[in-house]
Amino acid sequence: MTTKPSPLASIIMGSASDLSVMEKAAAFLDDMEIPFEMQALSAHRTPDAVEAFAKGAKGRGVKVIIAGAGMAAHLAGVIASMTTLPVIGVPIDASSMNGVDALLSIVQMPPGIPVGTVGINASLNAAILAAQILAGSDRELQKKIEVYKENLKQKIEKANRELSKVSYTHKTN
Amino acid sequence: MTTKPSPLASIIMGSASDLSVMEKAAAFLDDMEIPFEMQALSAHRTPDAVEAFAKGAKGRGVKVIIAGAGMAAHLAGVIASMTTLPVIGVPIDASSMNGVDALLSIVQMPPGIPVGTVGINASLNAAILAAQILAGSDRELQKKIEVYKENLKQKIEKANRELSKVSYTHKTN
Amino acid sequence: MTTKPSPLASIIMGSASDLSVMEKAAAFLDDMEIPFEMQALSAHRTPDAVEAFAKGAKGRGVKVIIAGAGMAAHLAGVIASMTTLPVIGVPIDASSMNGVDALLSIVQMPPGIPVGTVGINASLNAAILAAQILAGSDRELQKKIEVYKENLKQKIEKANRELSKVSYTHKTN
Amino acid sequence: MTTKPSPLASIIMGSASDLSVMEKAAAFLDDMEIPFEMQALSAHRTPDAVEAFAKGAKGRGVKVIIAGAGMAAHLAGVIASMTTLPVIGVPIDASSMNGVDALLSIVQMPPGIPVGTVGINASLNAAILAAQILAGSDRELQKKIEVYKENLKQKIEKANRELSKVSYTHKTN
Amino acid sequence: MTTKPSPLASIIMGSASDLSVMEKAAAFLDDMEIPFEMQALSAHRTPDAVEAFAKGAKGRGVKVIIAGAGMAAHLAGVIASMTTLPVIGVPIDASSMNGVDALLSIVQMPPGIPVGTVGINASLNAAILAAQILAGSDRELQKKIEVYKENLKQKIEKANRELSKVSYTHKTN
Amino acid sequence: MTTKPSPLASIIMGSASDLSVMEKAAAFLDDMEIPFEMQALSAHRTPDAVEAFAKGAKGRGVKVIIAGAGMAAHLAGVIASMTTLPVIGVPIDASSMNGVDALLSIVQMPPGIPVGTVGINASLNAAILAAQILAGSDRELQKKIEVYKENLKQKIEKANRELSKVSYTHKTN
Amino acid sequence: MTTKPSPLASIIMGSASDLSVMEKAAAFLDDMEIPFEMQALSAHRTPDAVEAFAKGAKGRGVKVIIAGAGMAAHLAGVIASMTTLPVIGVPIDASSMNGVDALLSIVQMPPGIPVGTVGINASLNAAILAAQILAGSDRELQKKIEVYKENLKQKIEKANRELSKVSYTHKTN
Amino acid sequence: MTTKPSPLASIIMGSASDLSVMEKAAAFLDDMEIPFEMQALSAHRTPDAVEAFAKGAKGRGVKVIIAGAGMAAHLAGVIASMTTLPVIGVPIDASSMNGVDALLSIVQMPPGIPVGTVGINASLNAAILAAQILAGSDRELQKKIEVYKENLKQKIEKANRELSKVSYTHKTN
Repeated sequence: MTTKPSPLASIIMGSASDLSVMEKAAAFLDDMEIPFEMQALSAHRTPDAVEAFAKGAKGRGVKVIIAGAGMAAHLAGVIASMTTLPVIGVPIDASSMNGVDALLSIVQMPPGIPVGTVGINASLNAAILAAQILAGSDRELQKKIEVYKENLKQKIEKANRELSKVSYTHKTN
Repeated sequence: MTTKPSPLASIIMGSASDLSVMEKAAAFLDDMEIPFEMQALSAHRTPDAVEAFAKGAKGRGVKVIIAGAGMAAHLAGVIASMTTLPVIGVPIDASSMNGVDALLSIVQMPPGIPVGTVGINASLNAAILAAQILAGSDRELQKKIEVYKENLKQKIEKANRELSKVSYTHKTN
Repeated sequence: MTTKPSPLASIIMGSASDLSVMEKAAAFLDDMEIPFEMQALSAHRTPDAVEAFAKGAKGRGVKVIIAGAGMAAHLAGVIASMTTLPVIGVPIDASSMNGVDALLSIVQMPPGIPVGTVGINASLNAAILAAQILAGSDRELQKKIEVYKENLKQKIEKANRELSKVSYTHKTN
Repeated sequence: MTTKPSPLASIIMGSASDLSVMEKAAAFLDDMEIPFEMQALSAHRTPDAVEAFAKGAKGRGVKVIIAGAGMAAHLAGVIASMTTLPVIGVPIDASSMNGVDALLSIVQMPPGIPVGTVGINASLNAAILAAQILAGSDRELQKKIEVYKENLKQKIEKANRELSKVSYTHKTN
Repeated sequence: MTTKPSPLASIIMGSASDLSVMEKAAAFLDDMEIPFEMQALSAHRTPDAVEAFAKGAKGRGVKVIIAGAGMAAHLAGVIASMTTLPVIGVPIDASSMNGVDALLSIVQMPPGIPVGTVGINASLNAAILAAQILAGSDRELQKKIEVYKENLKQKIEKANRELSKVSYTHKTN
Repeated sequence: MTTKPSPLASIIMGSASDLSVMEKAAAFLDDMEIPFEMQALSAHRTPDAVEAFAKGAKGRGVKVIIAGAGMAAHLAGVIASMTTLPVIGVPIDASSMNGVDALLSIVQMPPGIPVGTVGINASLNAAILAAQILAGSDRELQKKIEVYKENLKQKIEKANRELSKVSYTHKTN
Repeated sequence: MTTKPSPLASIIMGSASDLSVMEKAAAFLDDMEIPFEMQALSAHRTPDAVEAFAKGAKGRGVKVIIAGAGMAAHLAGVIASMTTLPVIGVPIDASSMNGVDALLSIVQMPPGIPVGTVGINASLNAAILAAQILAGSDRELQKKIEVYKENLKQKIEKANRELSKVSYTHKTN
Repeated sequence: MTTKPSPLASIIMGSASDLSVMEKAAAFLDDMEIPFEMQALSAHRTPDAVEAFAKGAKGRGVKVIIAGAGMAAHLAGVIASMTTLPVIGVPIDASSMNGVDALLSIVQMPPGIPVGTVGINASLNAAILAAQILAGSDRELQKKIEVYKENLKQKIEKANRELSKVSYTHKTN
């Protein structure tokens, strides 16, 4: 029997319904073999649980936190106010305002308490940024990220080759 | 020697620099002779003080809370998550975004935790709304508010009379 | 035969088509056993009926008014101009502008006539805020609201427990 | 002694402070020798006066109404709901939101109650539109408007001639 | 054999695809028995036809023009620059921007050339405003508009009566 | 066997998924018999390929570049920074923000490095603009563009004729 | 006595007051020794002059048109509808809306009539883009543009060298 | 003579004029005794220098990059595309659009290339986030950040004490 490794990254979301957006972050961390945990904690409905999480994360060995929330999205900022770990915020499109409400609620933090914000619904980018932060002291992870970026490149190069064929066919008509 | 009455309303602001906006709320409550307190508490820089305030307010006799903040303004929402007192939010214009960031951060609260939001920098309206809430069980206060509204009406009626003179002068040229 | 209790809260909407949004407010007030009435009155199509309602509400024992409308949503402001009862405004997403038109038409009230505004389509939050206002002089209602908030908390705690299982399953792959 | 002619146009503004914007409308109507009146009436602070004005205007011979207001600008819509005279709305830039709040509060009227809206602070255009409406049954006014537009044209033609000189001087260097 | 009456109102649209929005204007004018014409003319694709239309409309007896267009909607402004008839602009939601592009392109006309703008896709309101303008010199039309507004009122009053029943049923559970 | 002509225009897109938007540009260039190439190159995922393309385009005889991208759309600007060929940018609606993010990321270029930007998703207009640029030294192409614009005009004239019939039918009911 | 060369570029602005923005375009064309003309023509106040200009430009040897205007900026689109020359639009910040009204009025042109739009007030970029278009058939101009871009680069490299000194001084404190 | 330590953080800005915004980042890193460098590099005017910087940073020992730029701010994204170091973006308010253009150009990065974005002009927060990232493997730095946050807290507590005095003075009048 093996014990699970202690999580280096925490993925927190404001509501269980955010899982469909945030699961891309989990999948990427998993691909990179970064131990992580995932929790639904609400800045507004379970403030005590958020506080317990934020104040305890560093002691449990967590190195970076990803927090996704929609609407007046206070989760990332509230966590950032209670820890000195880097916090990455994911604005979620969860109202009629297309995520602009969440974006401004997360990115426009007042002086002293930063949240590194990614695009609306961009949980994958949040996880990549988390991995890049962790890779600062993990050379092996660094290499995995380089391979990942190389694959992204090859995918678009392949698309380009196929596009060239399409366009030439088109032009000869 | 007299003791000060226990406050019925609390005016909270996220930063001492918000005082220039929030002092209109204080002046109105003072005019209405509503006992109130005024504090600078930051959701992000003094989260423990905010929690202590929010959880203790009802026990100290506070009946309504006015919370003003700018940028990613979490103060009103965080307080609302920790009390069942009615919370009135004042978005403050404190960044290049003209207060739109604060407005959305306050008004777009998720289901379950309302903040009654007034206009950008509209601390006077927040205080009037607080007084209207308190007046539900205070007939004397109710009358003062009616007098206040009557005065507003008379001011504009006076302006109207002066305008009529201007326009007629204008028309005879 | 019993008589119905006189309503403490009024839910007003600008059009019958707003009912699908506003019925969550009715359901919450019903759950809290707060006597309420619900009416469709248009600031623009039935201004006399709005005036009669607004001027008569306090005399009939109403303590708080919830007004929902879309587009250039004048209903909440017009009612607020004719009563000193607290008015809660619900901007409704009823045009191509995603409710931003209604939000600004309700929240940006001029000095003197406040409307406590909740989020776009957030009629549930309007009803909770109304209940919090009424609970200022009703200890039993106060307790019901606390139970409601406790339930919200437990729902997210349950979601969190399920999420933990998901994530651990995920990580072992 | 001569009696003043009965006004054909009414300029209404929500606050005396709007006069600096609205006086261009008065000046234009004056130039066109259109009898007009000018009043400060607030949809929110003097609703009864607004109602008396709106319901009485047609009987007094008014043919077109210009209504300017800022923020959650309900004045034009409220007047339009109480008369079948054409109402022209002028959104006034009177908050941190650059007049966008007033624009949406005026232009996005619900079906059945139109307000013909001009640009932010564009009271001159409101007056020109009012004159164009009145000119439908006043051939002499029609001619004055044509002369006015011809003058506009000549002003820009003069500017153009001067610009040509500037640019040629510039080019020969 | 009867001859058709000369049109008093012109409905112009920038593209045939705008008909689904603009036909509500036609239906209303038809209901009011106002003779009208309807044309598709593009400020950008048929500028000469727009010019011929705009310069000739007054001579043909047209009294008011309704112009609907989407995107960078220049049609109403271009027509207004070539006639002194009142022009009513209808911004059409025809791009990913929800009609905001058309709204600003129509309402923000420079000084001297007004367009009375209605809400996004609000062709019905444009037609009502046109009728109100025409009614200035047509007492019978005036009455028809009053009947129309009375019907609007009765529709919402009927909805209100039904809503009352719903809510009382709801409350007794 | 014939050799393909060297391309005068390049259509570049940031992702293969942009093809559904950009193919209208290809179809138009094809209609105009302008030799072109089409490639998928990402400013962020294949920066080296973008650099090689941008620095080599002029030498290969390309005269104008069309670059379409969504979200934080850097592609057009990055290409423009590496060539003195005219670059036309097409903002693509590829996020919850309706293309506004891409529009601002492309059009608001800093002084010194222009991108001629067309509307959101407006790849057809980008291709027409490219053709107009190429036609500066190609009289035959000039004529084809004039024929194309004449066809646009005839399409709307045909729509107009059909609309006239519709409207007259409508009016006689 | 020498004759002035026929202009290759036209700078058109909607109002003489736009000169302070547009003169950067003139200065750049002058620096590049590109013969140009500069005119104030209003789409709304002098439509006939705009038409005469747009239809005659190509015959007079003009190869590219730069059109700047503010508010509901129709000038660039109206010119583009009457010529097949490439038209570059400059949105000018001339209202309370910070130039967003002009940007959308210019860039969101309907299919068939493109305007290559640069940033708000970016007349310099418009002139550079015009020069890049003209350089397609003028190798000498091509070189001048390359020198200009090289100078831009050197300016920032010089700034960088100075910044390095600043930062090191700073760090040693 | 001592040698300067190799920089762990790089502050990059798109233009020397951004220094007034970015110098707060430098001051904070200096306070924390984090070795850093500061450079002006333009994604558009010196793309080769940006590439050389981005590809070389990791090899020189840099662990985190802060990139500030205004308008269509591509700098952060372009750097992020060429390194796997974490990149923090600072949108700078450098146009009439109040920094919204820069915010969207930085935060809305496509999948695969994240930029952790802070608020408009929030270079101080960028530096704090950089320090938090570096502190993951530097316990001493971790303590300095905790002291810094404690000081922020004490500043607001002091403001609060002073505010209490003000408000009590006010209330006794």
